[in-house]
Amino acid sequence: MSAPAHQIQRRVEFYETDMAGIVHFTNFFRFMESCEHSFLRSLDHELHGLVEGLETGWPRVNATCDYRAPARFGDLLTVSLYIEEIRNRSVRYRFEITKEETLVAEGKLSVAHVAITDEGIKAVPLPEALKVKLQSLITDH
Amino acid sequence: MSAPAHQIQRRVEFYETDMAGIVHFTNFFRFMESCEHSFLRSLDHELHGLVEGLETGWPRVNATCDYRAPARFGDLLTVSLYIEEIRNRSVRYRFEITKEETLVAEGKLSVAHVAITDEGIKAVPLPEALKVKLQSLITDH
Amino acid sequence: MSAPAHQIQRRVEFYETDMAGIVHFTNFFRFMESCEHSFLRSLDHELHGLVEGLETGWPRVNATCDYRAPARFGDLLTVSLYIEEIRNRSVRYRFEITKEETLVAEGKLSVAHVAITDEGIKAVPLPEALKVKLQSLITDH
Amino acid sequence: MSAPAHQIQRRVEFYETDMAGIVHFTNFFRFMESCEHSFLRSLDHELHGLVEGLETGWPRVNATCDYRAPARFGDLLTVSLYIEEIRNRSVRYRFEITKEETLVAEGKLSVAHVAITDEGIKAVPLPEALKVKLQSLITDH
Repeated sequence: MSAPAHQIQRRVEFYETDMAGIVHFTNFFRFMESCEHSFLRSLDHELHGLVEGLETGWPRVNATCDYRAPARFGDLLTVSLYIEEIRNRSVRYRFEITKEETLVAEGKLSVAHVAITDEGIKAVPLPEALKVKLQSLITDH
Repeated sequence: MSAPAHQIQRRVEFYETDMAGIVHFTNFFRFMESCEHSFLRSLDHELHGLVEGLETGWPRVNATCDYRAPARFGDLLTVSLYIEEIRNRSVRYRFEITKEETLVAEGKLSVAHVAITDEGIKAVPLPEALKVKLQSLITDH
Repeated sequence: MSAPAHQIQRRVEFYETDMAGIVHFTNFFRFMESCEHSFLRSLDHELHGLVEGLETGWPRVNATCDYRAPARFGDLLTVSLYIEEIRNRSVRYRFEITKEETLVAEGKLSVAHVAITDEGIKAVPLPEALKVKLQSLITDH
Repeated sequence: MSAPAHQIQRRVEFYETDMAGIVHFTNFFRFMESCEHSFLRSLDHELHGLVEGLETGWPRVNATCDYRAPARFGDLLTVSLYIEEIRNRSVRYRFEITKEETLVAEGKLSVAHVAITDEGIKAVPLPEALKVKLQSLITDH
């Protein structure tokens, strides 16, 4: 397996647990998003940028997660981001969430690159500089 | 005690509990806000309105809550809103959260009425029609 | 398309929106879980039941969602639950989230039925009475 | 002003913002709780400990927050914890949340020390070792 394009660490907070005593399943999607944003920040890419004077953003098209093992309050989790596919107007990231050697969860986020135009939200090509950076970091198959 | 100006009911969701098996304390502030918004909706007042063409909103100045008894998954809670004080540019609401006859929590939200101007966010007077409605519903002392 | 096995309605709360002005994508998973729990409640099935004296629960094995259209503060959403597959120790639900005629999101939750034993968490067969009820409500293909 | 007993730093996540473009007010209570837990961890005090064989915890009795300035996505916040009062069975913490030189929010959490007994939840004295550590860190008046 190739190296992740980015990694963050995250201690599980009390408010992220539920009455079953484990991290509520929806929070893993938040951990993935945090890692994605930390990744874009590390590339000096503004999350909300401008393309030809239009505000841009990254709405989610699909989110999926497989749960492998529970995570608990105080656990130190590592979130690893892999770039799985780069398209003209979208990116698909894959994430692994681990606790020491244990795989806790695996997920994917497919995100579109959009601009807010007078006619509404419209998918627009990734900025060229970002695309080049992403391609240099894509996961080998 | 005078009658509440507004009430909502709300069943506790699984994702609102924490590992102690009870509603996480921060969610009571969300229940209060839901009740406040339901109240404004019942008065036909748009949460994000316009005053002289400027966008307006209701940022929180203070939020406080006393916790009296735990609430658990599936509990049906009643949130009662009382208007405690009406000022020129702000309102203070008081809330009681009950489960059947049990008082679960009591809280207050002080909210400012603001407009987004070219020079930033600025407190502005409450719309007159809203002020009149609120005054007709204020809690007797 | 066959009828949903269950439906709930849910108004979007302010705290469920994000700075893009729309419902944060993780909340759709919460809406699905609320609908699943409301469904089990409608079948008189305790979420946390007992099987041969052991505490049971429904941890998530997979969660996935396709986002079709944004939802905004105050929108009244309908969440429809379909039973897609019933296995010995797990169920897969499918959900449609709509706003009037618009499909906002489609998702799936695969949940395992487990008991908490002295040796840890272990998948156990669905209670027979529940299995029969679910089978009577399964989506036709 | 005396030095804080503990500090953490916390970057604002996208999912912590709301449609007003700022951190939702309830999240400041989560930041305070994170700081409290990090503080207890720094004292080698288990959040969920045991007193004479009984499970213990720290339910909230009161939570309050004054909002001074908005915080936005990506902001790096510092949360400072001060010990305001130590009683036999409870502690009151005060928090300052700052963004560089700007005071963003000030809050307090009053937490009880309880044990889960056969007769229900009961306030119990703070562990002596913890009490001594807290007293050495209390804010001067």
